[in-house]
Amino acid sequence: MGAGGAGRSHHRVVVVGGGFGGLSCARALDGRPVRVLLLDRHNFHLFAPLLYQVATALLNPSDIAYPFRSIFRRSRNVRFRQATVASIDPRRQTVRLQNGDEIGYDSLVVATGSANDYFSNETLAEHTLAMKTLSEALGLRNHILSCLELAARSSSPQERRTLLTFVVVGGGPTGVEFAGALSELLHIVVGRDYPELRRDEASVVVLEGQDRLLGQFDGRLGRYAAQMLEARGVAVRTSALVEKADHDHVILSSGERLPTRTVVWSAGVRPLDPVGSGSPRSRSRRLRVDPFLRLEGTANVYVIGDAASVPTDGGGELPMLSPPAMQAGRYVARAIVNAAGEGKEPGEPFRYVDKGTMATIGRRAAVADIHGLRLRGSIGWLTWLFVHIYYLIGFRNRATVLASWGWNYLRRDRPIRLILRSRQDAITDEIDAES
Amino acid sequence: MGAGGAGRSHHRVVVVGGGFGGLSCARALDGRPVRVLLLDRHNFHLFAPLLYQVATALLNPSDIAYPFRSIFRRSRNVRFRQATVASIDPRRQTVRLQNGDEIGYDSLVVATGSANDYFSNETLAEHTLAMKTLSEALGLRNHILSCLELAARSSSPQERRTLLTFVVVGGGPTGVEFAGALSELLHIVVGRDYPELRRDEASVVVLEGQDRLLGQFDGRLGRYAAQMLEARGVAVRTSALVEKADHDHVILSSGERLPTRTVVWSAGVRPLDPVGSGSPRSRSRRLRVDPFLRLEGTANVYVIGDAASVPTDGGGELPMLSPPAMQAGRYVARAIVNAAGEGKEPGEPFRYVDKGTMATIGRRAAVADIHGLRLRGSIGWLTWLFVHIYYLIGFRNRATVLASWGWNYLRRDRPIRLILRSRQDAITDEIDAES
Repeated sequence: MGAGGAGRSHHRVVVVGGGFGGLSCARALDGRPVRVLLLDRHNFHLFAPLLYQVATALLNPSDIAYPFRSIFRRSRNVRFRQATVASIDPRRQTVRLQNGDEIGYDSLVVATGSANDYFSNETLAEHTLAMKTLSEALGLRNHILSCLELAARSSSPQERRTLLTFVVVGGGPTGVEFAGALSELLHIVVGRDYPELRRDEASVVVLEGQDRLLGQFDGRLGRYAAQMLEARGVAVRTSALVEKADHDHVILSSGERLPTRTVVWSAGVRPLDPVGSGSPRSRSRRLRVDPFLRLEGTANVYVIGDAASVPTDGGGELPMLSPPAMQAGRYVARAIVNAAGEGKEPGEPFRYVDKGTMATIGRRAAVADIHGLRLRGSIGWLTWLFVHIYYLIGFRNRATVLASWGWNYLRRDRPIRLILRSRQDAITDEIDAES
Repeated sequence: MGAGGAGRSHHRVVVVGGGFGGLSCARALDGRPVRVLLLDRHNFHLFAPLLYQVATALLNPSDIAYPFRSIFRRSRNVRFRQATVASIDPRRQTVRLQNGDEIGYDSLVVATGSANDYFSNETLAEHTLAMKTLSEALGLRNHILSCLELAARSSSPQERRTLLTFVVVGGGPTGVEFAGALSELLHIVVGRDYPELRRDEASVVVLEGQDRLLGQFDGRLGRYAAQMLEARGVAVRTSALVEKADHDHVILSSGERLPTRTVVWSAGVRPLDPVGSGSPRSRSRRLRVDPFLRLEGTANVYVIGDAASVPTDGGGELPMLSPPAMQAGRYVARAIVNAAGEGKEPGEPFRYVDKGTMATIGRRAAVADIHGLRLRGSIGWLTWLFVHIYYLIGFRNRATVLASWGWNYLRRDRPIRLILRSRQDAITDEIDAES
């Protein structure tokens, strides 16, 4: 093996979390002179921006998820292990897994992402449906289809209305995209596959606390998104604050009660990390990092993605989106290789290059904000489609899946409408059980 | 609407179960002058012969399942309802659902299929894995992949061996097909995606109680299947009776204990029906029917498929396979239309036309027995492929899915290797909850 080959170094890198940030970092370290162990609680990377399409029966789980072991099949220096990290000990340079095992590191990358935040409101945590994981998206699909089955056999107008009212809390990109896709699903199946139901009985409602949708976009794009959703039959209610939820209602701060069995939460996330409470955090509870993305007070613990608070020039912090996470992952990989090779400080501080933001409302309607260039309608939609297909193909190279997707999309069918419950799999629990 | 139009008649047909038999019957009644209600506990028809391909990560659930409501989307006289039937009352001509609802019928078709039979052995029922439903096949996929993850991180040779020994109980077509596909999956991933594992640590064992595989085929095909499995590294053990199982063993009647965490049950099924214990049954507990497939003692309750005991000339009964169920479904549909139209007895008794049996062992190896014409090897495999693709296309018309399937099959990849647990979906339970 030649000098500088991957097998030479014994610098051990542990990457915790295989989302966009952790995967980018591990890929950038592939073939470099370090030994990498990637840990994730799932055995697959998830293309999370398309989760809402699994929840609305347009895509299969395997269309947006790919096993880590396949991704690194040909790698000589990147290994994967399915495990949940319980804590880290920067002093002893170890991570502790939920099953009790300890793993040492020379450099650590914390890329553990985020979870839904219900702002300590237990009724919302209990009575709303999430869409952050693949299992949750499948659970949401089962729930929506079960509501249709139950409504189809009910003779009570009130019960039917409650079952057929679908409330989305939060008018950011996830809420807007899900509401648009759900409305299209209902248009496709209500009255056609469910002749017992009338279209005017079904409704999708978006509740947004601020005064407009897509707060992180330009105001005109937010208004355009609202118009497009309303043209598709979605009721958009801004300045509507959700106070609590129960079994068959969502209750606004105005006291208004909306009867519904389905409240989907896309109104807030909080960072998720195994770092103890002693480390300094931003107001949004993300971990503070130095200009080189190192956890404050450490020299070899990097934090990237949703878990990290990276300040922007405007005094805010980088948004919890995939582009900052991916850029940070590649930046940290370079810094680690430098540090491992020569023990020197990383050169330049991390700088995020904003390439734009986008969201789709449905077929042939999307918004994109690219360096002040605001695209919408069919052009926005084609841009959205191109970017997502580009990343999916780069990621999986599965033209057949995309053909299937485009085909179902264009002919307006949702062949994946299966109500499919998985029994608890005892052995899957053991992956995190104490050994 | 013209005379004889579908809307004219008020003859109510209830079909219980949407497997091959019930679906064939409902399809044959589509457009005929009767009103049909199809009931199934799932909202989709399942192409059950390919379940083993879901369990071994070659196909997606939606590739072999299709929503009933899509199938009958354009029908004017066939309706679907997702429900489990608890009992039937032939005297009052009603079926009672698990949620308490009662539905009246003029003609009833019982097509409720079969469930695994563990011959009252509770240790087998508890410690073996089933593959009869789509959820079970997904659970089995999760289990197999979790075994690989757990073995990859274990340093105990004994524990690794136990996790990597996969035992299939039953050498009929299901057991043979699953063992062949599982062996191919292991060849693809062990040592490649799991560099921690060696191929000689993993093994698939088929335990068959009789003295040869594929008892219902010609003896030469059974021997050929055993040779082909062994060439693929599967250990075939005939005359091996399973006595019991525990958490990490299967125990043979000889006293031998095989350490394993995975025992897949394909050794026996029993009929499943909502008919009370008073009705006459065959030794295999299937319901006895008259030559017109009517439940003995009734004039308007038909039983088809696995639930029915249809005598053969040789003194046996028709096998529990899809062809007899489908032929019976179409026969009963004609009988019901005749009876509804003119109130007359059905003309000819039911006669089953045997078109052959087939099973695949893996890529380019299958056996088919068609009227004494015994095919095997590549020709058998192509015949098997043609028949299954023909029925899938006839059933779904989804060339894209088949392209994806063929593509993954030929390039020897299994992109669907996701360990994916679904949380319990509370609302799905309500479909059968008391209302």
